Amino acid sequence: MGKQAIGVVGLAVMGRNLALNIESRGHAVSVYNRSSTKTDELIAEFPERKLVPAYTLEEFVESLEKPRRILLMVKAGEATDATIAALKPLLDEGDILIDGGNTHFTDTIRRNQDLAKSKLHFIGTGVSGGEEGALKGPSIMPGGPRDAYDLVAPILTEIAAKAPDGEPCVAYMGPDGAGHFVKMVHNGIEYGDMQLIAESYWVLKQVLGLSNAELGKVYTEWNEGELDSYLIEITSKIFRKKDEETGLDLVDVILDRAAQKGTGKWTSQNALDLGVPLPLITESVFARVLSSLKTERIAASKVLAGPAAKPFTGDRAAFVEAVRRALYFSKVISYAQGFAQLHAASAEYDWNLDFGTIAKIFRAGCIIRARFLQKITDAYAKDPALDNLLLDPYFSDIAANYQSALREVVSAAVAAGVPVPAFASAVAYFDGYRSERVPANLVQAQRDFFGAHTFERVDRAGSFHANWS
Amino acid sequence: MGKQAIGVVGLAVMGRNLALNIESRGHAVSVYNRSSTKTDELIAEFPERKLVPAYTLEEFVESLEKPRRILLMVKAGEATDATIAALKPLLDEGDILIDGGNTHFTDTIRRNQDLAKSKLHFIGTGVSGGEEGALKGPSIMPGGPRDAYDLVAPILTEIAAKAPDGEPCVAYMGPDGAGHFVKMVHNGIEYGDMQLIAESYWVLKQVLGLSNAELGKVYTEWNEGELDSYLIEITSKIFRKKDEETGLDLVDVILDRAAQKGTGKWTSQNALDLGVPLPLITESVFARVLSSLKTERIAASKVLAGPAAKPFTGDRAAFVEAVRRALYFSKVISYAQGFAQLHAASAEYDWNLDFGTIAKIFRAGCIIRARFLQKITDAYAKDPALDNLLLDPYFSDIAANYQSALREVVSAAVAAGVPVPAFASAVAYFDGYRSERVPANLVQAQRDFFGAHTFERVDRAGSFHANWS
Repeated sequence: MGKQAIGVVGLAVMGRNLALNIESRGHAVSVYNRSSTKTDELIAEFPERKLVPAYTLEEFVESLEKPRRILLMVKAGEATDATIAALKPLLDEGDILIDGGNTHFTDTIRRNQDLAKSKLHFIGTGVSGGEEGALKGPSIMPGGPRDAYDLVAPILTEIAAKAPDGEPCVAYMGPDGAGHFVKMVHNGIEYGDMQLIAESYWVLKQVLGLSNAELGKVYTEWNEGELDSYLIEITSKIFRKKDEETGLDLVDVILDRAAQKGTGKWTSQNALDLGVPLPLITESVFARVLSSLKTERIAASKVLAGPAAKPFTGDRAAFVEAVRRALYFSKVISYAQGFAQLHAASAEYDWNLDFGTIAKIFRAGCIIRARFLQKITDAYAKDPALDNLLLDPYFSDIAANYQSALREVVSAAVAAGVPVPAFASAVAYFDGYRSERVPANLVQAQRDFFGAHTFERVDRAGSFHANWS
Repeated sequence: MGKQAIGVVGLAVMGRNLALNIESRGHAVSVYNRSSTKTDELIAEFPERKLVPAYTLEEFVESLEKPRRILLMVKAGEATDATIAALKPLLDEGDILIDGGNTHFTDTIRRNQDLAKSKLHFIGTGVSGGEEGALKGPSIMPGGPRDAYDLVAPILTEIAAKAPDGEPCVAYMGPDGAGHFVKMVHNGIEYGDMQLIAESYWVLKQVLGLSNAELGKVYTEWNEGELDSYLIEITSKIFRKKDEETGLDLVDVILDRAAQKGTGKWTSQNALDLGVPLPLITESVFARVLSSLKTERIAASKVLAGPAAKPFTGDRAAFVEAVRRALYFSKVISYAQGFAQLHAASAEYDWNLDFGTIAKIFRAGCIIRARFLQKITDAYAKDPALDNLLLDPYFSDIAANYQSALREVVSAAVAAGVPVPAFASAVAYFDGYRSERVPANLVQAQRDFFGAHTFERVDRAGSFHANWS
C-alpha cells in the first residue's frame, strides 16, 4: 500500500471536514484521532472515500510520504502542545506540522522556535469559514518558514476557497506567527462587522419600528449594493426564519446574550500592546460582554429610564439609506483600524505582511467575505505603504459622502436612547484621526502638573517641565 | 546605635520622598540605593533629618529592627525581582517586604507565593499622589497577608493623606495582588477622568469658541460644585499659566501628543480578561494612542474634511452647563465601570474587596481625589453588594437629571466634527446597561448560522441550534 501525501490529526468537525475537502481534490488522507470512535465514525460514514485510518500515532506517521505533512486540528493550547510532544520523537528532519487551530500567535512563535531546533517545520495557519468553509473551501492564512510553506502550498491552494475572479484564497502571510495573527485580526474584524450590523438592526427597529419582514427586505436590498457580503446575506435570511416550535420569528425567540470564544478579546489586547487605536472592535467585544449581563440589565431597566419615546417624523426611506451609509462608512473605519493594526504588527514582529494580499484572501471562504474587500486590495495595489485606508481616494470619498449620514444616525440613536457603541466610536475615531489638533495638550499639561512627566512643545523639539506651583 | 523600625530601598524621587515623609513622623529611616551617589545626595541635602545611610544591602538589613520592614521603591519588573533576590538570603522569617512600585498585580501574586515559601511576608501596595503626595501624604493601597499588614499599618497610617473628615487614606485591600490591582484600576479611572476633562475642554473651545481665560473661569466655577476634585482644580490653573519663553498661554504651546506608562492599558486588558465592560477607560487609552500619531493626523487633516463650521446660535451659558452635566454624568458612568471591574476581580481572585473603603481612601492624597468619592462610599454603605453604582439612588438621580445634557453634548460634538470618544462611549454604555433587550439576539443568530455555535431561547433554558439552510 502506498503512503499518503498528507494526514490530519484531530477529527472534530473542522478536522474531518478539512480531511474530506483534501480527499475531494484527489488525495488519499491519513486520519487519526486520540479517541478511535471518531475515526471509526468518519470511516463508516464515508466508506467510499480515500481516508486511511490510523489508530496509533506511530502507525499514522508511518503512513505518510516524506517530508511528512501533518495537519493538526486539535484544541488550541495544551492539547496542541501535548500532540506536538507526542509526535515529535516519531518525526524526521524536514517534516512539516501545520497547526490549523485557533491558536494565539505568540504560541505559534514559540512552537516555531522550539521545533526549528529539531529541524522540524512548523506552520501556523488561520482557517476561516466555519464548518462549511472547511468542507468546501475556506480562506487559509499560513505563516511559518517560507520553504516549508512551498511544500504544502499545492494542497492548500487546491482546498482553498476561490474568489470571484478565480484566485484561491490562500497566500503565504509571513514567518512564524504571521498566519495566526492575521486570523486573529480577521476575527476581530468579524466582531466589529457583526456589532455594526446589530446596531443598524436596532436603530431601524427602535427608531423606525421596522418589522422583521421589513428588515429582511432591507438587508436583502443592501446585499445587492456595496454592502454585498456573507454577513449581510445571512442577516437577511435570519429575519425571514420562523421558529419551528412556536411559529414566531426566530430572531425574536433568541435570547439577547452574545457569547464569544476569545479571539476578539485577543485582538483588542494586542492592539493595546502595540499602541494602535482599535476602539471599534473593542467596543464590539465589550458590547458582547454587556449583552451577557442579562440579569443585571433587566434589573437596571427598572431603575434607569431613558428618554421619552417620540414617533419618527422624518423621511423614512431617507433614514433607512442614512443607516446603510452609516453602516458602510463605519465598516470602512473598522477595517482601517484593523489594517492599521496589521501594519503595526508587521513592523513590530518583522513579518513584512502584504496588506493587499491579505484583503484578497478574505474575499471568499471566510466569514467576513465581501465585495468591499476588493477595494482594500486596490488601495494597497496603488500604495503598498498606505498608512491608513481612510487616506485612499476611494475610501476618503466614502468619508466625504457618508459622514453626514453617520453623524445623523448617531445623533438620532443617542437622542432616542438606542445604544450604538460601535457607530459612535467610528465617528469619534474618524474625527480624531482627521484632526491636526486634539486636546491631548491638556492631558500632557495635567501629567506634567501632578507627576512632572514633562511635555513636548509645538515650537521646538525636546522635553520640558513647567513650574506649575 | 539603635536600629531603625523601617528602611527604604531605592531613592529615586518617590522613594526619597516617602523616606522623608516617614522621617517627618518621628521615625529614623534606613536608606539604601544601588548607586551610592543618590544616597549621599539625599543625606547631604537633609543633614538634619534622621536618615541612616547604608552602602551595602548587608549593612542596610543589619540596621533594621526585627521583624524588618523594608519598603522597596525600585523600578517595577526585573529590577524588583533582582532586588528581592539579593535581599532574600539576608532576611529572617517574619520580615516584611513592601513593594510600593507600579507593579502589575500578577507579579505581586507570584512574589507573594514565592516569598511565603521562605516565611517572608510580601506586601504589594499602590501609592498614589505623585511626588508631592509621597512627601506630604499619599493614598496607600496595601495588599498581602493580613498579619503582616498589621505590623506595618501604624507607619502607613501616619504617612498617608488625611481625608476631609480626618480619616487616613490607607486601608487593607486584601490578599496578595489586591493592593496593586486597586492601584491599577485607580490609574485606569484617572485616564478616564483626564480624557473626559479633555473632551469637555475641546467641546467648549471648538463649539463655543471659549478662550483660555474663559476656560480657566469655567473650571474654577466647576471646582466649587459637585465636580470639585484635584484634576478639575489643576485644569483651571493650567488655563491661566503663561509660557515663560513666549508669553503665550502655556496650554497652547504644549504639543497635543499624550504619553502613557501602561497602567491604563493593563486596566483595559484585565477588563477584557475578566469579561467586564470597560469601554470608557479603554476609549481613553486609545485616545492617548491616537493623539500620539501626530504626523499621521497632520497628513489626514489635509485629506479628510469634516463638517462645515457653523456658529453656535443657542444659549451659551446653558450649553456650558450642559457640558458640566455631561462631564459629571460621564464620570459617574466611568466609575460605575471601574467599580464593576473591582467587583468582578474580587470574585475572580477571591479578595473580598470592600468597595466603600476603596472609595474612601481615594478621597485624599491621590490624583483622582474628589468630593464625589464620598457618594460612592455612601452608596456601598447603604448596599455593600451593589451590582453597579448607577443603581444607587444618588447616581440614578444624576442619570435621570443629566442624561439629556449628555445626549445634547454628544450630538452637538458629533454634528460639529469634534471627537468625543469617551462622552459617546458613556452614553452608549448607559443605554446598553439600562436596556432589557439589546440586539445580541442577532449576533447569536449569526454565530449559530455560520458556526453552529448555538443560542439560548427567551422562553426556556438550554442550548439550541437552528437548521438555517
